[in-house]
Amino acid sequence: MDSEQLLGKFITVEGPDGAGKTTLINGLTAKLEASLKVPLVLTREPGGDPIAEQIRRIILDPANTALDPRAEALLYAASRRQHLIHTVLPALTAGHLVLCDRFVDSSIAYQGYGREIGEAGILAINEFATDGRQPDLTLYLDITAEEGIRRIQANRSEADQNRLDVETIDFHQRVHQGYQVLREQYPDRIQVIDATQSPEAMQDEALRIVQSHFPQFFA
Amino acid sequence: MDSEQLLGKFITVEGPDGAGKTTLINGLTAKLEASLKVPLVLTREPGGDPIAEQIRRIILDPANTALDPRAEALLYAASRRQHLIHTVLPALTAGHLVLCDRFVDSSIAYQGYGREIGEAGILAINEFATDGRQPDLTLYLDITAEEGIRRIQANRSEADQNRLDVETIDFHQRVHQGYQVLREQYPDRIQVIDATQSPEAMQDEALRIVQSHFPQFFA
Repeated sequence: MDSEQLLGKFITVEGPDGAGKTTLINGLTAKLEASLKVPLVLTREPGGDPIAEQIRRIILDPANTALDPRAEALLYAASRRQHLIHTVLPALTAGHLVLCDRFVDSSIAYQGYGREIGEAGILAINEFATDGRQPDLTLYLDITAEEGIRRIQANRSEADQNRLDVETIDFHQRVHQGYQVLREQYPDRIQVIDATQSPEAMQDEALRIVQSHFPQFFA
Repeated sequence: MDSEQLLGKFITVEGPDGAGKTTLINGLTAKLEASLKVPLVLTREPGGDPIAEQIRRIILDPANTALDPRAEALLYAASRRQHLIHTVLPALTAGHLVLCDRFVDSSIAYQGYGREIGEAGILAINEFATDGRQPDLTLYLDITAEEGIRRIQANRSEADQNRLDVETIDFHQRVHQGYQVLREQYPDRIQVIDATQSPEAMQDEALRIVQSHFPQFFA
């Protein structure tokens, strides 16, 4: 982000399905709210804004099996733009810490690699959507594709499944590969957390990373 | 389109609001159906496919006044992709004549120029959406921005208005300017029809243009 103009910081949480993002975000939120000097804005993609949530419903509707992969990528980018302009940027301008579940990295991993659209096209439409803005910090929850799928299948009832849960192992392995490429491209921005640790240990590590990157936000 | 592989032809109808696209398409459809040797597929953007219609509802909902211009452009591109893959290309593969109300030119004129996003960004996301495919022929209904607005206001009741009807005269003049740039860029593809003629004269001229471009489709 343009840190000259924006007082706040934009942190994203990324990782394969089953890595434990939701649990981490819930636990980290509690710890941050106990120690932050500035407001915390917790948000997610796709969604995070009324119109972006309308787009989210199209993307995740299990009935929309005919959704073309490139149309899906464009919907994610549309939702991202709306969310960035109406939720993320106003919070950063106000000096808040924004913690967001997924951002452009997810599109590169899931659509670029998982659906094999390629990284260049996904980058082009997301450059358009974000004006090239990147998170200030990304927490990447590291887990193998196999372990991620095992956890999803153990934890999610059939009625609860969305359109992305029914993908093949090959899909999830390509997603994992995409994340590895991103980790190599952005070694400073993307901080890796071992997702085989206990939830409590992951939350403590995440808190330490956030505190060390943005000490000005803590007492 | 890849005319080597696709037996059909893809014709789009473009022009500013109020130019009379709907009347032209209805009249031309009747004349084409009376003389074509192949099936005619009549479709429109945004929409033309069940998922694309879901996207259309978000774009045109008068309540969505907070829709960001770039998010809007990405939604049009998403709808376009879905419509192209699931409606247009299968019809062209089957050798049909496809007549489509609006395509990429509309996004360049309305989002690129009207909303001042610029032509380059709109082209980039539409290149992604269409794999660079272009119509085989575009019928452009030529009318001034002022006359177009006058007709819209005369013909449409307030309850009937959608989100695009409430734009300023400046917006419609920029749209018109965008179409002029496209006419200069694609003088072969874009055939101009004077929209101040009678509806019957416009339909006859459109039919003659289609017949002269694709004589193989007529008896």
